[in-house]
Amino acid sequence: MAKKFAELRDKMSPQAQARVEARVKEVIDEMALGELRRARGLSQEALAIVLHVKQPSIAKLEQRTDMYISTLRSHIEAMGGQLEIIAKFPEGAVRIANFSSL
Amino acid sequence: MAKKFAELRDKMSPQAQARVEARVKEVIDEMALGELRRARGLSQEALAIVLHVKQPSIAKLEQRTDMYISTLRSHIEAMGGQLEIIAKFPEGAVRIANFSSL
Repeated sequence: MAKKFAELRDKMSPQAQARVEARVKEVIDEMALGELRRARGLSQEALAIVLHVKQPSIAKLEQRTDMYISTLRSHIEAMGGQLEIIAKFPEGAVRIANFSSL
Repeated sequence: MAKKFAELRDKMSPQAQARVEARVKEVIDEMALGELRRARGLSQEALAIVLHVKQPSIAKLEQRTDMYISTLRSHIEAMGGQLEIIAKFPEGAVRIANFSSL
C-alpha cells in the first residue's frame, strides 16, 4: 500500500513534493482525514485508486466520526503513513498492541 | 474537544508545553489491552462494572484485533486514560481529529 503511495508521489514534480513536505512538517496538531489528505497533496480520486474503491467512498469515509481501526489503518497507510493507537494516562502513554499485527 | 485542549494548552507556560511535548515524544511502551488493564491495577470485573457490561465481554474485547474506535475509546476511558489516534509520516505526526468530538 505504502509502495503505491510512493509511486504516486514519485510522479509529482520536485516542487510539488517539496511543497507537500513543507506542509506536512508545519502540521503539528490536529487534522481531520480530509485535511490530512490535502496536506499530503492527494485527491480523493488518487486515494480511491490506491484503496481500490470509488471516490465517493473516500468522501464518505472522511466525514465519518467512527469506524473500524482496520479501516482507518488502511486509509492512513494509503496516504503513506502509519497508524498509531495511543492510550494516554497522567503517568505516561502506552501504545496499544492489539491492533499492530493486522 | 480539540478546541478545549488547545485552549488549555495555550494557557500553559512555554516550559509546561515543552515538558508535555517531551513526554509525548518519550513514548512508549507497547501493551495489549489486558496487560494495560493489569498495569493499571484493574480486574476485568472492575472494568466491567465501570462499562456496565459483564466480565466475559471484557475478556472477549481484550482478545480482539479489530474494533470500532468508539468502543476502544470507552474502554481506554474506563481505565482512566485518553485515546489518541496518530498518523505518523516520515515528516512528522498528526493527530486525527475526526473522532475527537465523540
